[in-house]
Parts: sequence; structure tokens; C-alpha cells
Amino acid sequence: MRGYSGDKDNLLKRLRRVEGQVRGLQRMVENDEYCIDILTQISAATKALQSVSLGLMDEHLKHCVAEAIAEGGGTAEEKVREASEAIARLVRS
Amino acid sequence: MRGYSGDKDNLLKRLRRVEGQVRGLQRMVENDEYCIDILTQISAATKALQSVSLGLMDEHLKHCVAEAIAEGGGTAEEKVREASEAIARLVRS
Amino acid sequence: MRGYSGDKDNLLKRLRRVEGQVRGLQRMVENDEYCIDILTQISAATKALQSVSLGLMDEHLKHCVAEAIAEGGGTAEEKVREASEAIARLVRS
Amino acid sequence: MRGYSGDKDNLLKRLRRVEGQVRGLQRMVENDEYCIDILTQISAATKALQSVSLGLMDEHLKHCVAEAIAEGGGTAEEKVREASEAIARLVRS
Repeated sequence: MRGYSGDKDNLLKRLRRVEGQVRGLQRMVENDEYCIDILTQISAATKALQSVSLGLMDEHLKHCVAEAIAEGGGTAEEKVREASEAIARLVRS
Repeated sequence: MRGYSGDKDNLLKRLRRVEGQVRGLQRMVENDEYCIDILTQISAATKALQSVSLGLMDEHLKHCVAEAIAEGGGTAEEKVREASEAIARLVRS
Repeated sequence: MRGYSGDKDNLLKRLRRVEGQVRGLQRMVENDEYCIDILTQISAATKALQSVSLGLMDEHLKHCVAEAIAEGGGTAEEKVREASEAIARLVRS
Repeated sequence: MRGYSGDKDNLLKRLRRVEGQVRGLQRMVENDEYCIDILTQISAATKALQSVSLGLMDEHLKHCVAEAIAEGGGTAEEKVREASEAIARLVRS
């Protein structure tokens, strides 16, 4: 059971939409569409992925805190370290 | 004929790989994989999209300059304006 | 007493270095230096600020977890919400 | 004579404002202010620097195109290469 389980359908729906956006990008390239329009669509897909990341991170942090309360530290500390590393990857990507 | 036409196959290959990454993300969610691992994969897909954007932008700018030389301004100026707006979207996404 | 208190001197040292970088940027503009070199220096200052942010965020999250253990939720939940919002601002800036 | 020369006063004013923001950040740390508030101010300073970068990049690209028209390529090509590298640094920072 994962922190995002309650939201799994919504998460899958959003990822399927991103998949559709990326397939749309391939069609744009095949049809020789204008590269500035392609760039705009890539920005939209990137933003959609970022928004999925931010939602997952929020769930993860809530889960860390709930676990810290239930178990009194230990694994929660490790999870915060993982979260900080993931935030750094998010910010730098 | 677009600025990226010479590189169309490579571009399509990279976008198909991103599509595969996004489908992989859906499998990870379906299998309840650990959300930090999902976040790492999202960062990888985001970086791949960014790299496609940077390649397209480079082609666009080369094209602007070539056009400016051939036509002596006019549409080149408009294209630089578009490029600057697209760069702003890239940086802010 | 803040989460970053133990690290206050280090934090101030890093912020003073960023201040020096921004003053250096002003000198570069005054001396009409090449704009690509100025852009490189702005990227360096931006990265330095980001790195300060990531350190502060890590401290904040550790603090949230410690507080959740000590107090059993309540304010910790609110702090996670604040952290998620701050992460979103970081990622989008 | 640089591409941004006409805009030098405005550029300096914006950089002095960023310097003020970074000094404000030092005061916030000295006064033990809440780290989420500090993070918000860092995001503001980062956005201000980014906006300076985007303005400089726009000027640089206009200059590239003008130069390409005047000189017929050569250095313009090299400048586009530099611009693309600087855009990549901007996007990844």
C-alpha cells in the first residue's frame, strides 16, 4: 500500500494524458509542423509531468509524517533524506 | 521544410523513447511501486523532453540566422521574438 | 529557534557569497562585458540560491518529522502543506 | 558596444534590486525568521535573476541576427552556438 494509492486512478489518467501529448508531438514532427509550436507542446507535457511529481511528493511527505508519528522516527528519517534528494532532482531537472 | 527536418528521424526516435518512459511510469503506478522511484523516472522523462527542446531551439536559432542572411531581416526579427518567448517558457517550465 | 539555527553561520556565508556574485554582475554590466559571460554568472548565482533553498528545505522536512514525533501530528500536517507549496514554487522558479 | 548597452541603466537597477533581496535574506536568517518565508524570498530573487537572463538573451539573439545580416554569417554562427549553450545552462539551472 503506497501513499498515492487512494489517488491511483487520477494519477494513471494524468500519465495517460501525458502519453497522448508525447504521441501528439510525434505527429507534429511527422507533419513538419513549426518548431516553435512543437516547443510549446513540449513545455505543456513537461509542466504536466512536473505537476504529477509535485502531487506525488506531497503524498510522500504526508506519509513520512504519518509514519514518524506511528513508528517514532527511524525509517521516517531515511524517507526525509530520500525526499530531499528527490526534491533536488525535481528542482534541477 | 523545417529547420529540424534533417534530424527528423532522430527526433522521432527520442520522442518514442519518452513515450515508452511515460508508459513505464503507468506500469510503475499500477504495480504500486515506491513513489521516490516513480519521481526519479519522471525526472528522467522531463530531462529527455528538455533535451529535445534544447535541440529544437538550437536548430531554430541557426535557421533564424540563415534566414536573416538570405532575406535581410524582416521575418528573422519576428522569429527571434518567437524564440525569446519560447526560451522563457522553457526556463519557467 | 529555527530548524536551520545550527547552520546559521554557514547559511549567512553562502548568502554573502551570492551578494558578492550579484555585485560582480553589476560590475560586469558597467564594464560592458560580453552578455554570454554575464549569463554564465547569473546561472552560477541562481544555482547557489537554489542550493541554499534545497538545504533549507531539507532542514524544514527533518524538523516536520521531529515535531510530528514529539507532538503527534497537528502542526506537522500544516507544515507539510507549507513545504509542498514551497517545493512547487522552487520547481516552478 | 554591447547588445544590452541601450538598456544598461535598467539592467543595473534590476541587479541592484536583486542585491537588496539577497541582503534582505541575510537579515531574515539573522532574525531567525521562518524558513518557509525565507524560501519564498529566495524564489523571488531567483525569478528576478531569471528575468534578467531572459532579457539579456533576447538582446543577444537580436544582435546575432543583426550581425548575420551585416556580416553574412561567420561570427553569427559562433554566437548562435554560444547562445544555445547559454540557453541550456538557463534551462538546467
